[in-house]
Amino acid sequence: MITGKNYVGSQLLAGGTKTYKTINPQWNIENPWTFTEASPEEIEQAIALADDAFKIYKNYPAAKKASFLNSIADEILELGDALLEIYCTESGFLKGRAESERGRTIFQLRSFANMLLEGSWLEATIDTAIPDRTPLPKEDLRKMLVPLGPVVVFGSSNFPFAFSTAGGDTASALAAGCPVIVKSHSMHIATGEMVASAVIKAAKKHQMPEGVFSNLIGSGTTLGTSLVKHPLVKAVGFTGSINGGRALFDLASQRPEPIPVFAEMGSINPVVILPEALEKNSKKWAAVYAGSITLGTGQFCTNPGLLLGIKGENLDQFSKELADEIEKIAPSCMLHPSIKADFNNGREKIRSQNGVTTVAEYKEETAPNYAQQTVLSVDGKTFLENTVLSHEVFGPFSIIVQCENLEELTAIINKLDGQLTGTIIAESAEISNYDTVISALQNRVGRLIFNGVPTGVEVCASMLHGGPYPASSDSRFTAVGIHAVKRWVRPFSYQNWPDELLPEALQNKNPLNINRTVNDVITNKPI
Amino acid sequence: MITGKNYVGSQLLAGGTKTYKTINPQWNIENPWTFTEASPEEIEQAIALADDAFKIYKNYPAAKKASFLNSIADEILELGDALLEIYCTESGFLKGRAESERGRTIFQLRSFANMLLEGSWLEATIDTAIPDRTPLPKEDLRKMLVPLGPVVVFGSSNFPFAFSTAGGDTASALAAGCPVIVKSHSMHIATGEMVASAVIKAAKKHQMPEGVFSNLIGSGTTLGTSLVKHPLVKAVGFTGSINGGRALFDLASQRPEPIPVFAEMGSINPVVILPEALEKNSKKWAAVYAGSITLGTGQFCTNPGLLLGIKGENLDQFSKELADEIEKIAPSCMLHPSIKADFNNGREKIRSQNGVTTVAEYKEETAPNYAQQTVLSVDGKTFLENTVLSHEVFGPFSIIVQCENLEELTAIINKLDGQLTGTIIAESAEISNYDTVISALQNRVGRLIFNGVPTGVEVCASMLHGGPYPASSDSRFTAVGIHAVKRWVRPFSYQNWPDELLPEALQNKNPLNINRTVNDVITNKPI
Repeated sequence: MITGKNYVGSQLLAGGTKTYKTINPQWNIENPWTFTEASPEEIEQAIALADDAFKIYKNYPAAKKASFLNSIADEILELGDALLEIYCTESGFLKGRAESERGRTIFQLRSFANMLLEGSWLEATIDTAIPDRTPLPKEDLRKMLVPLGPVVVFGSSNFPFAFSTAGGDTASALAAGCPVIVKSHSMHIATGEMVASAVIKAAKKHQMPEGVFSNLIGSGTTLGTSLVKHPLVKAVGFTGSINGGRALFDLASQRPEPIPVFAEMGSINPVVILPEALEKNSKKWAAVYAGSITLGTGQFCTNPGLLLGIKGENLDQFSKELADEIEKIAPSCMLHPSIKADFNNGREKIRSQNGVTTVAEYKEETAPNYAQQTVLSVDGKTFLENTVLSHEVFGPFSIIVQCENLEELTAIINKLDGQLTGTIIAESAEISNYDTVISALQNRVGRLIFNGVPTGVEVCASMLHGGPYPASSDSRFTAVGIHAVKRWVRPFSYQNWPDELLPEALQNKNPLNINRTVNDVITNKPI
Repeated sequence: MITGKNYVGSQLLAGGTKTYKTINPQWNIENPWTFTEASPEEIEQAIALADDAFKIYKNYPAAKKASFLNSIADEILELGDALLEIYCTESGFLKGRAESERGRTIFQLRSFANMLLEGSWLEATIDTAIPDRTPLPKEDLRKMLVPLGPVVVFGSSNFPFAFSTAGGDTASALAAGCPVIVKSHSMHIATGEMVASAVIKAAKKHQMPEGVFSNLIGSGTTLGTSLVKHPLVKAVGFTGSINGGRALFDLASQRPEPIPVFAEMGSINPVVILPEALEKNSKKWAAVYAGSITLGTGQFCTNPGLLLGIKGENLDQFSKELADEIEKIAPSCMLHPSIKADFNNGREKIRSQNGVTTVAEYKEETAPNYAQQTVLSVDGKTFLENTVLSHEVFGPFSIIVQCENLEELTAIINKLDGQLTGTIIAESAEISNYDTVISALQNRVGRLIFNGVPTGVEVCASMLHGGPYPASSDSRFTAVGIHAVKRWVRPFSYQNWPDELLPEALQNKNPLNINRTVNDVITNKPI
């Protein structure tokens, strides 16, 4: 049952006066539930509880935090099909996507639980004392990662499970030892409430301190602003638009005590298709590319919005083949009427620029919130001169840039904003001739892909999901994979500290049996 | 010979119109050299060269970068006593300090060279493909750290060697693969020029790309502002005042493309002396504390400016003993007349507050730039109510806060700004009774010290030199030890990338023979 209330810690509260409803984008109607936005007092209370909880939660043993994370996963599964149905109702996604995204969310929670049990993520580093060193003795020094404090997580629109209430940001922050306050994304508040109920249930089962998790509702910017500006909040995770992410980054940077914001923002994920690949395999790549553009109605951060090739017959042929593929894919539903409207407006803005032509477009009538996938084209010179053409259009959209030559193609890459990914499609024989292109692309992206597509973000330690600004607000961190935990921790040193008072990770006998760097050597041996 | 010019890459240029002179603080006179501040064209040229150099330097093998760093160390030593003399002339420090700081600088450069050769700092992480995974195959993913781009380093006033021209920030950035542009600290430009000449000599010997290092002169804020705002600059390192560091942080955050600033700023490094230690060992700790306050004329970021104890006879006794120690230490020279003036003003501002009394002060006449070390005292309630009393006074200064009880002491810690260090002085038997105090202190600092003093920052992997704001602008990084390199790098992923085109660190056969995390296991084995 959806209550429409805020979780302030484990309490369901609705003391506010503003209410809100979500949309069913498939049916284009309002959903039945009425949500009450968090009142200023509820926001304050959630933060105060999180701060109190931090003092306790940060000291819990790794195994206890791991059980909590696994238990959240269990409780989410326990919600069964009812959760998937609500997800579909609020997102317009179909059940298959709901299931796979839930699977990813569960996998993320369990990955962080495993990371906690394995223990090397703490980067425990020990330099033992050298009392007889001259001219001065060396003191014993031991360092490990410790949590920052309460973290605010902004749910994303396009991942109602995997990057929202109990998604990657929440899982990594809880793993770090930071209480989490979620600002539920306003497009899927019922989904958020159900997932939050699972988190709260797990927290109760594991006797977590009240306030280790809260889930607040707010449709405008008041809630987010209040959270980010609050002195007890110590870090922020966000997935969404450049404007939204930058606004939060600015708020956080301008605080008396600035705090880190990890915002994963826009990206057009350039794909470079090299001449031999175009000549030999254009049909194959056209099909693959069409699939990547339209996957999830194009609503992925890693959706390829820009294809760069050298102009000529082969690129023309590829464009025709891409058009054939694009036009036979059945359109699908977008997340919200406003997202559909933004898609249409963004696409038309680009289409209306000088020199832009339409390569492919699904032309038949669709349901109101369904997106008509579109591929446009322009020459390289025009693209270089008109910055509007590199704006992201969120949805199933891409622009093919026909470059005069390799120099122009490289110049375009060098002028691009930072991106999550860059892709090279090539025959093996030719790739070594394109050092300059690859090097330029590497400089602008967080992940480089060979003969594949950027969509489909594997959750593993080697994944980098982030990149130079504005792909993310700080390219030194990732939002996906266990290293995402590094956003919420700081290194901390103990000097000459009594062994029995050290955290277990740093004690001589290594009771956690974890890998540590002791006098510059990685070992799990005791000291 | 001091030329008074800027190093724009390897060229000595002085096209500017503004000139500047440094001071000999011991003699309180101007030094003979005339320095020409960098012109706007020279600034632009240094940055453009750094950007060009980045494209080449980032791809150099680790061994080549390591040789360059070791060669910088060799060339600094090669400058011999002439360098130490110039250092003393511009800083007011004596030769012993010059030698030990040079030793630290050399050690830092060689530590980063060793780190490069050892290779695990790259955090090479590999997840191999699982082509037959269902429902979707897993792609091969490989991640490592890559450099951000040109880094600007602001020389510090109080470490003319170790945190200036070729100090920790420069060494870590060059190790990362980032070209460096130094803004020479205006108090020791001749020292900076000599050290820069060593870097340039090493760069030439090792055929480094022109612009891998520049050293620019500027006395006001124009040079720093131009550097931090320039779109080709990708990160900033700074050691100095809160006002200075925050101004740079704000400039960098407000750029169209924000860039990271690691600013190591003020700290009063609270020391808590617990009751039994006061009772049993007050005389010993008074001597140790007096030494720490006055070391280097108190001009360390880690100088202990605040001592917290429970009021009573034992604390009174400690204060008397501290006074005896303080008054018998001969005063020493500060770095600059302006630093001496700031010291006097800061001390008098605190002394003039209600309830503040003088515990100890060196009273005899001194040379003009010599500091009269001073210890003041105030009760806990007054300290809590008056924020002026927790302002840093840079120099040999400390304030003893006589707390009513443990609650008041803890309340004071909780209200403190972020600090580099916190120290607990205690008898072993009593420390386990003070969990709350220790936990509160841990939350406010970057390094916790037991029965020692915060001065004397060991350069090793377990050191954390940084801390919650304003101790540093980002508590997630350290300025000291090899992990300081993490400020200048970002993780980068290759997906399905051909083995022969991967960087050596990620190739199957592991040609660098480094430790890597392969499918979640640390190993140096090939794949």
